[in-house]
Amino acid sequence: MREIRTAALACRDAAAQLAMLDTDARNALLRAMADALDAQADAILAANARDIEAAEARGTTGALLDRLRLDAARLAGLSAAVREVAELPDPVGQVTRDDVRPNGIRVRKVRVPLGVIAMIYEARPNVTADAAALCIKAGNGVILRGGSEAIHSNTAIADALRAAIAAQGVGADVLTLVTDLRRETMLELLQLSDIVDLAIPRGGEGLIRFVAEHARVPVIKHYKGVCHLFVDTSADPGLALRLLLDGKTGRPSACNALETLLVHADIADVFVPRAIEALQQRGVEVRGDAGIASRADGVVPIGDDDDAAEFLDLVIAARVVDSLDAALAHIRRFGSDHTEVIATQDDANARRFIASLRAAVVMVNASSRFSDGGELGLGAEIGISTTRLHAYGPMGLEALTVERFVVDGAGQVRHAENAAAF
Amino acid sequence: MREIRTAALACRDAAAQLAMLDTDARNALLRAMADALDAQADAILAANARDIEAAEARGTTGALLDRLRLDAARLAGLSAAVREVAELPDPVGQVTRDDVRPNGIRVRKVRVPLGVIAMIYEARPNVTADAAALCIKAGNGVILRGGSEAIHSNTAIADALRAAIAAQGVGADVLTLVTDLRRETMLELLQLSDIVDLAIPRGGEGLIRFVAEHARVPVIKHYKGVCHLFVDTSADPGLALRLLLDGKTGRPSACNALETLLVHADIADVFVPRAIEALQQRGVEVRGDAGIASRADGVVPIGDDDDAAEFLDLVIAARVVDSLDAALAHIRRFGSDHTEVIATQDDANARRFIASLRAAVVMVNASSRFSDGGELGLGAEIGISTTRLHAYGPMGLEALTVERFVVDGAGQVRHAENAAAF
Repeated sequence: MREIRTAALACRDAAAQLAMLDTDARNALLRAMADALDAQADAILAANARDIEAAEARGTTGALLDRLRLDAARLAGLSAAVREVAELPDPVGQVTRDDVRPNGIRVRKVRVPLGVIAMIYEARPNVTADAAALCIKAGNGVILRGGSEAIHSNTAIADALRAAIAAQGVGADVLTLVTDLRRETMLELLQLSDIVDLAIPRGGEGLIRFVAEHARVPVIKHYKGVCHLFVDTSADPGLALRLLLDGKTGRPSACNALETLLVHADIADVFVPRAIEALQQRGVEVRGDAGIASRADGVVPIGDDDDAAEFLDLVIAARVVDSLDAALAHIRRFGSDHTEVIATQDDANARRFIASLRAAVVMVNASSRFSDGGELGLGAEIGISTTRLHAYGPMGLEALTVERFVVDGAGQVRHAENAAAF
Repeated sequence: MREIRTAALACRDAAAQLAMLDTDARNALLRAMADALDAQADAILAANARDIEAAEARGTTGALLDRLRLDAARLAGLSAAVREVAELPDPVGQVTRDDVRPNGIRVRKVRVPLGVIAMIYEARPNVTADAAALCIKAGNGVILRGGSEAIHSNTAIADALRAAIAAQGVGADVLTLVTDLRRETMLELLQLSDIVDLAIPRGGEGLIRFVAEHARVPVIKHYKGVCHLFVDTSADPGLALRLLLDGKTGRPSACNALETLLVHADIADVFVPRAIEALQQRGVEVRGDAGIASRADGVVPIGDDDDAAEFLDLVIAARVVDSLDAALAHIRRFGSDHTEVIATQDDANARRFIASLRAAVVMVNASSRFSDGGELGLGAEIGISTTRLHAYGPMGLEALTVERFVVDGAGQVRHAENAAAF
């Protein structure tokens, strides 16, 4: 049980070394990591084949098996993604405030790495390379604790990356893969508040709640995305329909997919029949209230749990509401602070929608599917936060740093008697 | 035991109302709060007299009693401080990123209030007004849980402020004072992770550890300030001595006071005799190693715990070190990530000192006593964070907000088939 603490300390020491590298050296490190993924492709794919075989033996099928699977093309995509991270602007060293005080001291706020980041995740082995690249780009050590389903893939990927890191003269422990997958070891990792600066869980709600409940280290998380589209009276019906279809059917399993449609009563006669039919034509099951069911065929009556549901599937909850206020009240009650969308041509209503909701991302006349680090211009995404601290919404490289103060003086003192003393 | 949850929910509802107010309305609210402190001065001072009487009956004396005491001048200072907060720039609504993506969506990051902030603090009743003003200025609800020693003072101050808030048409519960001071009630407050967005403990190390260990809500804290001054070979001895005296004797009880002096061996013969004598002339007890003791009289041998000690008194630990690296290793081992100072005329050494240390504030040729929200230009200070997340170092109004995404589009969708569909 002491091993995880020792491993975390080694990661912290290597991270201190990494933090001293300049931008070019860190980017060179990332490119070497990408090259290593390409060079070790055979070993990684062979390891992945063992994970797939074991998963099939356990009866895993469908999407779960697909998430676990690597092939030459996916692996090439993975190394390409690491190279893209190398090309992103470096947040480390950015000066976010530069101010000379009346006494002449110069006060700067400068971005520095967080330190050591623990990623706790499930199934998908690509997270191993993605998260490592983002954390290391921002000068951090990373402790990766993936799921047992992907242990061979994760080990092969981490081995390739660690060898590349060591070959660049940085301690390989800056990337530490936890291979002891016992729950008590994860618990111990989450208690290391003197070493680990941040834990980011990625996976199902069960995993995330487990991490949030047991961590003594800071955690950034989101449980789920129950995203709403509100179609205002003034909405352009065609525009609203595009957002609806894109949000629900573009990638139903994503956390930024729409889960609930709210339609203002004054536009329901125009919008609902056409919208419900279009959804159904794409295979979406519509669970609607009386206002929806009275205006379209084939609507399943909305159930007690549907308003709060994250379906992650071709299913949508739909309601007609009497006013913008009613829509806001519904979203406040059932929303998950992830992403909320209004379709409207009325600026005042758009402003009211934005101001009234706490969500991390609020969209006016744009698809919820843009709620993503890459789409929002962050370059890459390490996760999404629905915690209102440090970062809120999609998190890019900047969220893996913190600002600190650097002060330059010429001998200034605060207490005048000390200025005069010599 | 349900009452604290109900109270916190009421605070959150009132905070949602507050967050809708514009800057002018929030500033007017703060000025009304300041006026109420002046108008209710007699009631507040009478309440404070009861706290003082009880403290004296318990045998409290000296600094502790002084921290608890209010008088007309201190109360006037308190209302003046609230008015100053009203005059500070408003962080809420600040746009920190404004970017049009290639597809035409406009992505802004906008500062919004955190939500509900719980302040857990001891003795000093001025925190009740200070913290309330800062939290409310930034659009947040605040739950104040002060110590039992100040319960009458805190209640009188909170009553005055709440009446002023209600008179401005905002729910008084936006400022909620916890008067049930049982430990289990504080525990329950710290578990309300669905309501409380941040807890800030201010007080002794025991209180802060208790909060950090039991909270399920995010906590920003600092345990202690073990601040070092390193006098480099190249230092201007007079400048270094000013920083030393200012840092140690300016206000020894402050967390940004110096606790340890490290002197490069190559300047020790010049610096140590004069510096130790000057400290002693001001009543400072110097606990030094052999390198110090061999160069000055009256040095107490340094003890095992002195390197890690936060003396908060006219006592300093002092050592001679062989190199900048030795100083950095010492600070890394014993520092508290609060504030570290180098006196040097060598730019390369200054850069190395800055880059090698993790501390929240790093100073070159300036007094550690400037490590303070007001002195660094933040306008006011809600606390100091040595947690490397969200905020690091002195925290002003900005640290009481978080940035979220606001996206404006014209019907853009992410999946091309939906753009073409209608």
